[in-house]
Amino acid sequence: MAIGGAEDKARDRVILRRFVELCGGSAARIVILPTASQLAGTGALYKELFTALGAERVDVLPVNTRDEAFERGYAADVRDATGVFMTGGNQVRLSSVLGGTPLAQAIRRANSSGVVVGGTSAGASILSEHMIAFGRRGSLPHQRMVHLAPGLGVTNRVIIDQHFRQRDRVGRLLTAVAYNPFLVGLGLDEDTAVVIDQHNELEVVGRHGVLVIDASDMRHTNVHDAGGHAPLSMLGVHLDVLVHGYRYDLERREALAPEPAEG
Amino acid sequence: MAIGGAEDKARDRVILRRFVELCGGSAARIVILPTASQLAGTGALYKELFTALGAERVDVLPVNTRDEAFERGYAADVRDATGVFMTGGNQVRLSSVLGGTPLAQAIRRANSSGVVVGGTSAGASILSEHMIAFGRRGSLPHQRMVHLAPGLGVTNRVIIDQHFRQRDRVGRLLTAVAYNPFLVGLGLDEDTAVVIDQHNELEVVGRHGVLVIDASDMRHTNVHDAGGHAPLSMLGVHLDVLVHGYRYDLERREALAPEPAEG
Repeated sequence: MAIGGAEDKARDRVILRRFVELCGGSAARIVILPTASQLAGTGALYKELFTALGAERVDVLPVNTRDEAFERGYAADVRDATGVFMTGGNQVRLSSVLGGTPLAQAIRRANSSGVVVGGTSAGASILSEHMIAFGRRGSLPHQRMVHLAPGLGVTNRVIIDQHFRQRDRVGRLLTAVAYNPFLVGLGLDEDTAVVIDQHNELEVVGRHGVLVIDASDMRHTNVHDAGGHAPLSMLGVHLDVLVHGYRYDLERREALAPEPAEG
Repeated sequence: MAIGGAEDKARDRVILRRFVELCGGSAARIVILPTASQLAGTGALYKELFTALGAERVDVLPVNTRDEAFERGYAADVRDATGVFMTGGNQVRLSSVLGGTPLAQAIRRANSSGVVVGGTSAGASILSEHMIAFGRRGSLPHQRMVHLAPGLGVTNRVIIDQHFRQRDRVGRLLTAVAYNPFLVGLGLDEDTAVVIDQHNELEVVGRHGVLVIDASDMRHTNVHDAGGHAPLSMLGVHLDVLVHGYRYDLERREALAPEPAEG
């Protein structure tokens, strides 16, 4: 589950409630990685939230350095969990602290054996193999507008951006997809999440929208010729804008509206 | 096989000869992708070279646009080949033209079923999952010094840089590895290549050197805090410099000197 940041923590808590449900509800054992955050209270805040939403057990793993990410106990904690949650903050902190450590390996392996891995904001960005590290604002793509870095690789086919509409990030996501249209771009608004299941089908949960960029049929781009910070051309890009309850099949690259209510 | 560019084409042709041998020598059926290059004669030049080195059959696939990369015939040509060779030029042209097309899929699949996939310069960069798209010169790492893009993903664990010593690229490779030390950085000098076998062991072939950067034991970096274009810290990075005949085990991250000659 990837959350676009700033998810509701005070009212219905639709997204965090869904995360706990996915982790097993009253049987959920969740570990929280506050590594991305500089704020000491972030882990404790999510522990309180998940506990209030009925999780059986919630532990914060205080991993702030690479040394700590090498401690065997934390990787074991991940293997014992039904869910792993990464907080917001700075995604390059996550990739540079966790990358190549036993903890990162434990998270990837747990996910492939069915453990739910989720995160918000930076914790959402890190989930993909190709991660947006930083970039500039703007609605149209420009050369050198986005910096990519390797993420955790929990999911491979998508590239995730967050705080999407709130921070004017369409241009940088288009730029990332122009580099290699193998990627599907997902722009997640705040208080909005996607749940990706084991069949690579995603579902939108939350208050705003998700932009899906599919350039697999793109017939032309000047991304290899455009110099400096020049604007990019991209011909033949498919966009879908999804809201709560909509789904998208990442294998077939097809958006699915919800079934109409009966009656 | 990844070549650092500017390989010898006139004298012993050690690297290109080795490529033909790997593809089956006199039984080699090689397809050439000149997509990265803007020069019309590049494909024909390599066709002439591989033919002179004894390959049974050499075909140039004239793929310059995404439309052409969707043509079924070319994917079939790749499936029938024993080797695929990508020329130099611009690696973002390769990723933006080939990404997400049946031709890219055919190359990845051919490689996993034993077909040799090689390239020089841009054609070397594109081989890795995380590709260096462009960057700045310099011997020490700086924030935002390197732009990554998704490559073909023929190999996953390494990130390849080329024209390495000749274009002063140590800093940008260090920067890429700092983002996520899961990656092993390979800096290939001109007229120097690595052959990576199915056990993830690589061997150096050619005239100059290969720098291997392993930051898996790196205990600290400021990459997540350094603003703008600030210099980066990286504590505890392992370097190996290899020359012709040396090997490196990418699984164990260990360099191996050649056996001493018998006497």
